[in-house]
Amino acid sequence: MPAAIDFYFDFASPYGYLASLEIDALAAAHGRSVNWRPILLGAVFAVTGSKPNMQLPLRGDYLKHDIHRIARRQGAPLVWPAVTPVNGLAAARSVWWLSEREPATARRLAAALFHSHWGEGRDIGPADVVATVASGIGVDGAALLAAIAEQRIKDRLRAETDGALARGVFGAPFFIVGGEPFWGWDRLPMLAEWLTRGGW
Amino acid sequence: MPAAIDFYFDFASPYGYLASLEIDALAAAHGRSVNWRPILLGAVFAVTGSKPNMQLPLRGDYLKHDIHRIARRQGAPLVWPAVTPVNGLAAARSVWWLSEREPATARRLAAALFHSHWGEGRDIGPADVVATVASGIGVDGAALLAAIAEQRIKDRLRAETDGALARGVFGAPFFIVGGEPFWGWDRLPMLAEWLTRGGW
Repeated sequence: MPAAIDFYFDFASPYGYLASLEIDALAAAHGRSVNWRPILLGAVFAVTGSKPNMQLPLRGDYLKHDIHRIARRQGAPLVWPAVTPVNGLAAARSVWWLSEREPATARRLAAALFHSHWGEGRDIGPADVVATVASGIGVDGAALLAAIAEQRIKDRLRAETDGALARGVFGAPFFIVGGEPFWGWDRLPMLAEWLTRGGW
Repeated sequence: MPAAIDFYFDFASPYGYLASLEIDALAAAHGRSVNWRPILLGAVFAVTGSKPNMQLPLRGDYLKHDIHRIARRQGAPLVWPAVTPVNGLAAARSVWWLSEREPATARRLAAALFHSHWGEGRDIGPADVVATVASGIGVDGAALLAAIAEQRIKDRLRAETDGALARGVFGAPFFIVGGEPFWGWDRLPMLAEWLTRGGW
């Protein structure tokens, strides 16, 4: 069984959203599976001393223009959220909680949360919004709200974020397959080529 | 005559070096010309509050790995310089000086300086090294050294860097064609597609 692709993302990243629409098909075309791994970029940036790109002068304007340009090209739904960067804490905890019991549903929840935030412009920061989105795909919203308040789930997200940092993840989306790192939506073609050629 | 591609770069950027090896052929394939425009990213970062990527924790390690990976793929000569980021002041001034009298030679000088720094690992910060590289392609080194000490040439580079900032350039390599901005070596395929399709 060839190595899976670890897909690190933060719901706050629009490039992560764009990547989330493509990564499963890319992986399947190369006989790979994908581990969807939400992390908190804020905790990563606290270590690396970075800031969200969309808050940087000039870069933030370019980013917005670029995201719209890519979304048009890919035919991806995009409504710029009123709240950016969104607080992805409740969303990320929910995905990790669900991944322990229903991995396939956890992946669907992540996709639904990405769509709600970037495809429809909703603020998915509040836990009750996350629960509503989860209910929409058949997940028990009350159970979700109880679970993400548990220390064990909080610790899980923290451990995953720390683990990402330990593997060199400094931004998102970030992909690691067979030890090879790829940063950014725009590296998906190179990731695909790497899998086709077996590296170079 | 379709709009030329403005190619903004700093000799300190390895992605700029990689782009410099491809941009002329890409432009020619679409019937475009290229304006090679060296700027000083340090002055840009002073305004935007950014730092050179290679100095950021984790990102710097990834960058080095990534540059080597791309260079292998492209067959681009690469010897990691002992001095990074290089001070591109004398090199950039030299290119602007030469561009006023011999634009084609100025472009050749820029390519030679990129090659010397990233292809051979030399420190092209010192003005006498720049003069030596220039002599190697038939440029009068003594005239170059005198010119880049002139206030007029210093002002030219400053004005070009300010002009880049005014157009939203926050990093390098950065390309603008017909008002459309593209940041980074990895956006060259999208730039090419944009020219082919006339935007989207």
